[in-house]
Amino acid sequence: MSIRIGIYGYGNLGRGVENAISMNKDMELKAIFTRRSPEQIKPDTQGVQVLSTDDAAKMVNEIDVMILCGGSATDLPVQTPLIAKHFNVVDSFDTHANISDHLIAVDSSAISSGKVAVISVGWDPGMFSLNRLYSSAILPEGETYTFWGKGVSQGHSDAIRRIEGVIDAKQYTIPVDSALSAVRAFENPSFETRDKHIRECYVVAATDADTARIEQEIISMPNYFSDYDTSVHFITQKELDRDHSKMPHGGIVFRSGLTGVNKENRHLIEYSLKLDSNPEFTAGVLVAYARAAFRLYIEGRKGCLTPFDIPPVYLSQKTREETIKELL
Amino acid sequence: MSIRIGIYGYGNLGRGVENAISMNKDMELKAIFTRRSPEQIKPDTQGVQVLSTDDAAKMVNEIDVMILCGGSATDLPVQTPLIAKHFNVVDSFDTHANISDHLIAVDSSAISSGKVAVISVGWDPGMFSLNRLYSSAILPEGETYTFWGKGVSQGHSDAIRRIEGVIDAKQYTIPVDSALSAVRAFENPSFETRDKHIRECYVVAATDADTARIEQEIISMPNYFSDYDTSVHFITQKELDRDHSKMPHGGIVFRSGLTGVNKENRHLIEYSLKLDSNPEFTAGVLVAYARAAFRLYIEGRKGCLTPFDIPPVYLSQKTREETIKELL
Repeated sequence: MSIRIGIYGYGNLGRGVENAISMNKDMELKAIFTRRSPEQIKPDTQGVQVLSTDDAAKMVNEIDVMILCGGSATDLPVQTPLIAKHFNVVDSFDTHANISDHLIAVDSSAISSGKVAVISVGWDPGMFSLNRLYSSAILPEGETYTFWGKGVSQGHSDAIRRIEGVIDAKQYTIPVDSALSAVRAFENPSFETRDKHIRECYVVAATDADTARIEQEIISMPNYFSDYDTSVHFITQKELDRDHSKMPHGGIVFRSGLTGVNKENRHLIEYSLKLDSNPEFTAGVLVAYARAAFRLYIEGRKGCLTPFDIPPVYLSQKTREETIKELL
Repeated sequence: MSIRIGIYGYGNLGRGVENAISMNKDMELKAIFTRRSPEQIKPDTQGVQVLSTDDAAKMVNEIDVMILCGGSATDLPVQTPLIAKHFNVVDSFDTHANISDHLIAVDSSAISSGKVAVISVGWDPGMFSLNRLYSSAILPEGETYTFWGKGVSQGHSDAIRRIEGVIDAKQYTIPVDSALSAVRAFENPSFETRDKHIRECYVVAATDADTARIEQEIISMPNYFSDYDTSVHFITQKELDRDHSKMPHGGIVFRSGLTGVNKENRHLIEYSLKLDSNPEFTAGVLVAYARAAFRLYIEGRKGCLTPFDIPPVYLSQKTREETIKELL
C-alpha cells in the first residue's frame, strides 16, 4: 500500500515535492492544497485533487503525511503547529535561530494529536546539519566549516528587488576559493564574514533609473551585503531570463580534526552538494522524511522530531534487511 | 558520570580507541583486555588496568561498553556474540558479505543478555554506508559510486608479504582520476574493476630473491591484484620504514541524481574522507557509537543494531537540546 501524501502550498517547493513523489514507488500524491483558487492550479500529476487549504481538515482520512511547502518567515511558524493537529507533517523550516522555538510549538500540537511532525528537513538545515553532527562526534578535536554556493539566494534576490528602480534581480552566493583551500590545507583558519563568501548580483534596472545609486544601495545594505565583497552587474531582462532563470545551489561542510598521542594525524571530512535545482533537491529530502514520519507514526511515535532524531534506515524505500544487505 | 569503556584487543585499532577516549570528556578508559601477557602491554593512559581477555567477565560491573578491536576475519565472528552475552559492545566488523549473518548471531546474544550491540562501525562499513543510504533515499533516480584511497590496504599488503622472498610490503589503493572525473561530469559511467582503482606496491625483497618472479606473482594474484592495473616497486627496508610507515586511507562516496519533469536537473552529492590514520579515524567512529550504545541501553533497548538504526543525536557529546540549537 502506498503512502498517501498531501502537498500544502504549491510554489517551487510544492512542485518539487510533486516531482519527487513520482520518483518514489511507495508514494502516492493524494491532494494539493493551495491558498489560491484551486481551479487556477494545473498540476503535473494526472488526476490529482486540488483543494483549498481551508478544506485540509476534511481530508484527514485520505492523507498519511502532509508535506508543508510554505516559507519559513511567516507561513510555517503558523502552519506546522496548525496542521500537526490533524496530520503527520514534514516541513523545511530553515530560520536557524528559531528552530528551538518552532520545535516546542510543533511538539505541543503533535503530542496532543498523537501525530509525528518532522521539522527543518532539507539540506541546511538537514543534510548539512547531519554532517556537522556526525563529523564533530567522530573528530571531537577539530573545526567545522560550512560554505554555501555557488547558488542563488532567494532572500538576497528579493532584497535587491525591493530597491527603487529595480525591475528584477538574481543574487549568487559564492564561496571564496582561498578560504576553501585554507580549510583543506589544515590551516584551521578563523574567518570574517567577508573572507568566506562573495556576493554577485545581476540586476535589471528601469530605463530611467540611477544605476550608480542602486549599486550603492545594494553594496551598503546592512546584514544582506555590507559585510561582503559584492559585485553588481546591470543586465537586460532578456539576459536575466536567458542566463539566470535556474535555481542552483549547494555548498560544502568540512570537518578537519586531529588524532594521535601528539595530535600528529590529520583528518578531513568533506561533504559537498552541487544542485541544479535547490527546491527539487530539498523536495527529495522532504519526501524521504515523509516516509520516515509515516513509519514512525505506524510504530506509535508522536511529537516533533528533527533529522537528528530519526534512524537513517527509516528513510530507505527498502526494508531494513535489504538496506543492511545492499548499502552497509 | 563518565561512560566506562573497555578495550578488547590492543593492536593499532585498540590504541586508536585509547587515544579517542582521551578526546571525549564524557568517557573513561576502565580496562584494556589482551590475549598477550598483560605485563607486556604499556598503555598510554596512566593507571589503566591491563587484564587478560580470559578475565573480561569479572569486569561486568566496571564497564559500560566494551569496544571490540579484533579483526573481522577470525576474531569478531567469535568475540562479538561472546562478549555481547555480558556487555554492551561495539565492533567494526567489515566483511560486507557476512554482515547479515554476523547481525543475526550478535542479536541473539544481545537479546538474551538484555544488552545493546552495535556492529559494522567505522567508515566503510559505517560513514560511507550512511552516505550511500541517505543519498540514495534523497535522489532515488541516480547512481551511487564508492571509491577507496589513496590508502594502505592491510589485506593486500599482507598478501604480498606471504610471497616467498618478500620481507616486507605496503600496498596503496588509488582511485583512477578519469573515473572520478566521469562521475563528476554526470556521465553515469559503468566501471569494470580495473577502471576504478589502481594498486601500487612497495616491496622489500630478500637479497637473493628473484624480483621478476615476485612481481609476476603479485600482478597475477587472483582477487587481490589480477583484476587491477598494478605497479610494483622494489625498495629497501629503510626506504619502506621512512616513506611508507603511516596508515593513511580515505575515499569518496558519490551520488549523482536527476530531478525535474523532464529529468533536466542534475545533482551531485560527494562525501570525501582524507585520513592520515585509518585505525585512529575508525576508533573515533567506534567511540561515538559506544556513547550511543550506552544511551540506548539506559533507555531499555537491547539487541544488535547497525549505524543505520541509530538516531544521529545519540552520537553527540551534547544534549539533544544543545545539539539541535548549535548544529541543526
